[in-house]
Amino acid sequence: MEKNKRIYLIGHKQPDTDSICAPIAYANYLKQKGKDAVPVRSGDINSETKYVLDYFKVEAPELLIDMAGKKLILLDHNEKAQSPDNIDEAEIVGVIDHHKIDFKSVNPIYFHNEVIGSTSTIIAKKYFNNKDVDLDKKTAGLLLSGILSDTVIFKSPTSTNEDKEIAEKLAEIAGIKNIQDFGIEMKKSKASLKGLRTEQIILSDFKVFEFGKIKIGGGQVEVVGLDEVNEKKQELIEKLKEIAQKENYDLVMLVATDIIKQDSLMLFFEKDNYIEKAFNKKPENNTLYLKGVMSRKKQIMPPLAKLFSKK
Amino acid sequence: MEKNKRIYLIGHKQPDTDSICAPIAYANYLKQKGKDAVPVRSGDINSETKYVLDYFKVEAPELLIDMAGKKLILLDHNEKAQSPDNIDEAEIVGVIDHHKIDFKSVNPIYFHNEVIGSTSTIIAKKYFNNKDVDLDKKTAGLLLSGILSDTVIFKSPTSTNEDKEIAEKLAEIAGIKNIQDFGIEMKKSKASLKGLRTEQIILSDFKVFEFGKIKIGGGQVEVVGLDEVNEKKQELIEKLKEIAQKENYDLVMLVATDIIKQDSLMLFFEKDNYIEKAFNKKPENNTLYLKGVMSRKKQIMPPLAKLFSKK
Repeated sequence: MEKNKRIYLIGHKQPDTDSICAPIAYANYLKQKGKDAVPVRSGDINSETKYVLDYFKVEAPELLIDMAGKKLILLDHNEKAQSPDNIDEAEIVGVIDHHKIDFKSVNPIYFHNEVIGSTSTIIAKKYFNNKDVDLDKKTAGLLLSGILSDTVIFKSPTSTNEDKEIAEKLAEIAGIKNIQDFGIEMKKSKASLKGLRTEQIILSDFKVFEFGKIKIGGGQVEVVGLDEVNEKKQELIEKLKEIAQKENYDLVMLVATDIIKQDSLMLFFEKDNYIEKAFNKKPENNTLYLKGVMSRKKQIMPPLAKLFSKK
Repeated sequence: MEKNKRIYLIGHKQPDTDSICAPIAYANYLKQKGKDAVPVRSGDINSETKYVLDYFKVEAPELLIDMAGKKLILLDHNEKAQSPDNIDEAEIVGVIDHHKIDFKSVNPIYFHNEVIGSTSTIIAKKYFNNKDVDLDKKTAGLLLSGILSDTVIFKSPTSTNEDKEIAEKLAEIAGIKNIQDFGIEMKKSKASLKGLRTEQIILSDFKVFEFGKIKIGGGQVEVVGLDEVNEKKQELIEKLKEIAQKENYDLVMLVATDIIKQDSLMLFFEKDNYIEKAFNKKPENNTLYLKGVMSRKKQIMPPLAKLFSKK
């Protein structure tokens, strides 16, 4: 292992704003500590992140395709499944994350995981705890955006008080007067379904879950108001049915989360009446309105997991 | 998960000084932060650790046998194999460690791993970085002992400059004038082989390694001078042979590391002349003197691994 070899900082596949902004900000931090650190990305920039990079006039990191022989720090993920395919050919020298852990290393490495709303929050704390390192306006803006994106402007159940406190300090440095307004503008840029095909809407953030023999697929989109979803409702349900039959899912759903009202509309196709049993509420026309529900991980999957563990 | 449930802080099986002192010190830290934190141990206190606890007049943590339903923070280890058997019935809420990683969690948890000489160094840094928390004389003494034990008084290849700097700050608070002398007195208390049966000497810190079909067992003891080992040499080699034949090892060794000279004497029994090939040096009477070698992990296993990977 060469001591001063370049270190690449990389977020997860299908990168969100946290997975782009945290690497850029941490590279700035490490550079000030004398390291040769370069932020990279492992997928396309989404429209929300593009809004943020344009707003703060920061260039997108380069796409890193070939991991072989590279020295990497993973940000915003640690599980192999979320890294590019040839990650095994890289040397992972560090991890900074806020997810569940599934990780193995051959040697001791730096690994920092916290129960907190975003990786950007952890990077911001590193800046604030280190007086030798300067936090410029642009970097503060990127970190603020990473927090607002991952915590859905502090409304996600994964958001903590610390995320909010750190965001307020960052907003002051970044010159963002109204955090709420900035967050909604940022979210809107991604939340529009205009020009997207039904398949793109369903699959843009799609996860597969298996409970014994039961196979579930669930997509989620964030929207500002439910009008656009309601317009495309029949079309979306048809597509869900098509996916279910083609890929043999027992249940396929699309959760459209209204970030303003903080409710979700679930569209689904199922082989049996699972949704009614799991949520104890009668759906109408393959549609269920879920009041106060925003998190697929914390609010949608647990009742389904409970239902299928009984079987 | 109850929010204010008692948290138990626990080191690895066959605890060394770092695995006892780091939990005691971190419990003090968390208590000052308003947490109900209790240090525990998962095995007997060794003679070195007893010396340290007596010196600073601190009681040994309670032995925790039943993990079921307990909320745990793992210190100085993260791999399941190094935890008590029913660890799966506990809820692991955090990890602070300095080893290689092999860990899986169901939810996000706090995980802090550094490339550093001891877990005590990491805990000491938490105290120094947190002005609200008071570091008393006894706790500083325990943390200093954890560092000196794991780094073999800064002589281990795993020791870093940071370990030394932190140890110096701790020694000042603990009122230890000569770190070197204190470290040697501490090490001596464990390093005596008097009254130990050959089997105890070989197995007190014994690890098994497998390379394809080749099975190797290696024990290590730290000694102050090699006189006691040389006296028992024939007896120890006989016992190594007995273990090799009984458990079908291709190679069994005992590495006696002289912490003053910083050399090791290796006694072994082998089915073929592996040692000569791996270390490129002719052993005499199942004995090889290794100048400048102190680390089983970094200096003894790599040449053997290289030899067997060629096969």
